[in-house]
Amino acid sequence: MATYTAPLRELKFIYHELLDGNSFQFLEGYEELSQDLVDAVLEEAGRFTAEVLFPLNLSGDSEGCSYENGIVRTPKGFKEAYEQFRKSGWTGIAANPDYGGQGLPKTISTMVEEMICSANLSFGMYPGLTHGAYNAIELHGTEEQKQTYLPKFADGSWSGTMCLTEPQCGTDLGLLRTKADHLDDGSYNLTGTKIFISAGEHDLTENIIHLVLARLPDAPTGIKGISLFVVPKFLPKPDGSPGPKNGVSCGSIEHKMGIKASATCVINFDAAQGWLVGQPHKGMRAMFTMMNAARLGVGIQGLGLAEASYQGALSYAQERLQGRAISGTKHPDKSADPILVHPDVRRMLLTMKCLIEGLRAMMFWTAMNLDIAEKAQSTEERRKADDLVQLMTPVIKAFGTDIGFQLTNIGLQVFGGHGYIHENGMEQYVRDARITQLYEGTNGIQALDLVGRKMGSHYGRYLRSLFHPLQTFIEDNAEISEMEEFVLPLAKAFGRLQQGTATVAQKSLTNRDEAGAVATDLLKLFGYVTVAFMWARMTKIALEKQADDPTGFYAAKIKTARFYMQRVLPTTSSLFAMIMAGSKTTMDMSEELFSSSEAA
Amino acid sequence: MATYTAPLRELKFIYHELLDGNSFQFLEGYEELSQDLVDAVLEEAGRFTAEVLFPLNLSGDSEGCSYENGIVRTPKGFKEAYEQFRKSGWTGIAANPDYGGQGLPKTISTMVEEMICSANLSFGMYPGLTHGAYNAIELHGTEEQKQTYLPKFADGSWSGTMCLTEPQCGTDLGLLRTKADHLDDGSYNLTGTKIFISAGEHDLTENIIHLVLARLPDAPTGIKGISLFVVPKFLPKPDGSPGPKNGVSCGSIEHKMGIKASATCVINFDAAQGWLVGQPHKGMRAMFTMMNAARLGVGIQGLGLAEASYQGALSYAQERLQGRAISGTKHPDKSADPILVHPDVRRMLLTMKCLIEGLRAMMFWTAMNLDIAEKAQSTEERRKADDLVQLMTPVIKAFGTDIGFQLTNIGLQVFGGHGYIHENGMEQYVRDARITQLYEGTNGIQALDLVGRKMGSHYGRYLRSLFHPLQTFIEDNAEISEMEEFVLPLAKAFGRLQQGTATVAQKSLTNRDEAGAVATDLLKLFGYVTVAFMWARMTKIALEKQADDPTGFYAAKIKTARFYMQRVLPTTSSLFAMIMAGSKTTMDMSEELFSSSEAA
Repeated sequence: MATYTAPLRELKFIYHELLDGNSFQFLEGYEELSQDLVDAVLEEAGRFTAEVLFPLNLSGDSEGCSYENGIVRTPKGFKEAYEQFRKSGWTGIAANPDYGGQGLPKTISTMVEEMICSANLSFGMYPGLTHGAYNAIELHGTEEQKQTYLPKFADGSWSGTMCLTEPQCGTDLGLLRTKADHLDDGSYNLTGTKIFISAGEHDLTENIIHLVLARLPDAPTGIKGISLFVVPKFLPKPDGSPGPKNGVSCGSIEHKMGIKASATCVINFDAAQGWLVGQPHKGMRAMFTMMNAARLGVGIQGLGLAEASYQGALSYAQERLQGRAISGTKHPDKSADPILVHPDVRRMLLTMKCLIEGLRAMMFWTAMNLDIAEKAQSTEERRKADDLVQLMTPVIKAFGTDIGFQLTNIGLQVFGGHGYIHENGMEQYVRDARITQLYEGTNGIQALDLVGRKMGSHYGRYLRSLFHPLQTFIEDNAEISEMEEFVLPLAKAFGRLQQGTATVAQKSLTNRDEAGAVATDLLKLFGYVTVAFMWARMTKIALEKQADDPTGFYAAKIKTARFYMQRVLPTTSSLFAMIMAGSKTTMDMSEELFSSSEAA
Repeated sequence: MATYTAPLRELKFIYHELLDGNSFQFLEGYEELSQDLVDAVLEEAGRFTAEVLFPLNLSGDSEGCSYENGIVRTPKGFKEAYEQFRKSGWTGIAANPDYGGQGLPKTISTMVEEMICSANLSFGMYPGLTHGAYNAIELHGTEEQKQTYLPKFADGSWSGTMCLTEPQCGTDLGLLRTKADHLDDGSYNLTGTKIFISAGEHDLTENIIHLVLARLPDAPTGIKGISLFVVPKFLPKPDGSPGPKNGVSCGSIEHKMGIKASATCVINFDAAQGWLVGQPHKGMRAMFTMMNAARLGVGIQGLGLAEASYQGALSYAQERLQGRAISGTKHPDKSADPILVHPDVRRMLLTMKCLIEGLRAMMFWTAMNLDIAEKAQSTEERRKADDLVQLMTPVIKAFGTDIGFQLTNIGLQVFGGHGYIHENGMEQYVRDARITQLYEGTNGIQALDLVGRKMGSHYGRYLRSLFHPLQTFIEDNAEISEMEEFVLPLAKAFGRLQQGTATVAQKSLTNRDEAGAVATDLLKLFGYVTVAFMWARMTKIALEKQADDPTGFYAAKIKTARFYMQRVLPTTSSLFAMIMAGSKTTMDMSEELFSSSEAA
């Protein structure tokens, strides 16, 4: 049966020990951020997610959202839970205090997000989308737009959406057709249909604010002619309350594989009034503001679901009695041993554990750099942190969700046939996780972003933001004997990554298909190597502290790191061989030959 | 949108060219088996599955089975389709002509099964389970039992089940509790509850015959005290028609992740009358008769679903217009190029294609050996063929379904966000495929069967049934220059397999956990190497025939083989490293440390 307790020991370890929480106090606005405050926030989030959100997860999946005459209802209990969530201040923890937020670091709000995603991903979608809308307006909106919308987003009384996709255009936004015509008062009239709009319509908030990509009448064709607009469901009155209904309606909701309690809407704009956000024809830039934050958030979803699945699987492996340990009975008092004694079950659980903890470190390390990129004193510090965020965003999104999906499947597998039964909760994690590989840019698109955009940017400057600290760590620890078993495999895998990226970069100069053909493998290689780096760093701390630790926390870290290095990291050797094989076999097949087997 | 056309060109290639269909005529009973007859059967099966079964697949999933007061109804259209299926003779194609079957080779009936699984897996479960019951009674039943049940199974008017699992016992059948008490007439009285019984109750046939594992009163404890019984839903009358209702009832059906049109039942036996099949306390042996055939069948399910997913994904990739080829526009007449031009989409489709065609060859090669094992003239021939079947059964089941699941996910991924939408049919394949990794023994259990039972059996004799022909093929082709690009990687991967198996065998002598800890990796290594062997054999044929082939079929085979060798087979290097790393890190973690991250 599914079960969830927030992994607080782990989150505190990452925040205070791996990332050195004290260093946040050197960032602007965080001078007062004490360990006690951080711990209190994490503990309260752990309690709320486990006690309020988790109990609605399975029931929300069973019931799903309903649609009738344009009205969308969320499952039983969601409205009350959202009200409690919002009143407890969770919607504004990272928002600017100028707009009523609590102004906590993104690192902390991202940790809270992990817990929300573990407990109830569908629920988390509603406030989650609002963050993207908040960011877009905070960075690109007018002062009036900020005053109108940001306090409502921060207190959670209004929610936001991102309206990008249309039936004929997903990845290729250049094909976008939604039009925006000028109105006399300087606002716009939007007409078009958007699909796959998460939280596009629902009953949790009194207003819904759509951030919509559309074309102005004089727009150039393609993606250079796209602008961003804010289009509220109800037009705000001067006093800030929701006024008359705008020309926005929900045409239907999708029947999906998972995240069934999250309403995925067709939204029709029919001469809806909207306001330009940012510059005309510069919508893609503003869109990427929303998208990049969202991509990190989607990676966190993969992590959160994997964690929840691990907890369910571990609990089952401790309770399910079946067979005896092959090396001799372990629990003679029981009718059989718990399946945790079996090597193959341990392999499954350790695969989950080492990847979850490694991903977690990687994601929060990146989140910390997001905070530094915004708040550090020097431009140089901010720039370096932003470089890492730029590089890691597609890796976190794609690797985090590919692994998240893989691990939820392993969790299900631990349950055997019982994992396939809805009521046990494990198959929901798999279905919910599956969307994370698709939305906010498919994982293939993330790989192209990494290889085609990030890798070569500024002559490889983003790359150096990862490679330099990695190289330094290896050099600093190469001579420490107890670190050898971790540093050697890391160095070997890092060598593969360096050679892989260099080879792809070089081959791409003469063959434009090269990068695309191996992008997915190269992104995975980045992921495995970065996780190995995280494990080596965590192990170093654990080795120093394990002697004085009666709980076994650091001992577990070291043993889990060993499993990662010996049983998971070797994946990099295959990835390296596939990358070196290059694009030839991928491109050498004519379009017709793909259907060779179907002829009679 | 999902679409299905039977891959007839491919099946005929395997049957006539790869397996040399003429050689079937040397087997007892198949002397008259002409190419025309085989082709006619495959073509008719292709038509039936595509036209009758496929249109009920998505609707069957949406509607599911219903349960009310012990009565189970299959979705709309299933009853009529089953009647047509049965009247067309498909239920008895491989059954013995003595009992009204058509006596075709298992190779052909297995090819028909692939098509059924592609078109509608849930539908296929009903006749599929009957095959297992047929086999058990044909091999272990009395003459009276054969006369009573086999003609009904062959004409499809009655169906069969396998009743093994109970709430407290899945893998560990030693924990089984269902009791069988003697009755005066030599029959038995069965009492107990069985769960996860596929086709346990439904409205497709006039009777349902349960093959049930239970304990006799004097039974030894554990798996040595289990006997097999036949327990009909309606007790057969002397004239062969269904008589009075037996003490068998369906308590409920499961809500599952997939195969929703297949009824998975709780079956209660309440003093139900049954008859012993085979010897007392020898039920496990008879059970394995059912199970082994079922395991090959489950591998075929993985293949069938992957094929269906490939067809849907390819069709979408040809139609969906998005972006332009990076090397220059390919279809200037369209608003964008079809996504098939993009390297990463081609990578996904080629990964599917090369694994599907490789798995197919592996599975039907094994099915052919099943026919040889039953029908060859000499004991020696039969023994050798059976050795290969024994070895490959767990590989086909586990590798076939792990890959099947992986590929249905790739197929979904090609659709982007549209793959997540129920109506497009791609996510159903993923959900349906997920069960195949779990039932008839989880894939972890298959790996233990391979490593713990099959590998060492008769001093490695089963192993030689694969390794000898593989070694011979490599030697015979090593000097042929155009085969070099296929034989070299095959030889390298085979070296890894040989060294991997030898190392595990040796380490297991002193450490009983060793085999269990790496069994799953070793099974995958067997799978990838065997598929490489199949590709090398297929390529050899294709190289000989491609010059005279205007259709491109053989050219596609060669190009697909190259992709497999360069972009998929390198997976074996990682698996090898993981196997060599051994069990230490897996077993070194105490049970408590698995929950290290959950403490506060």
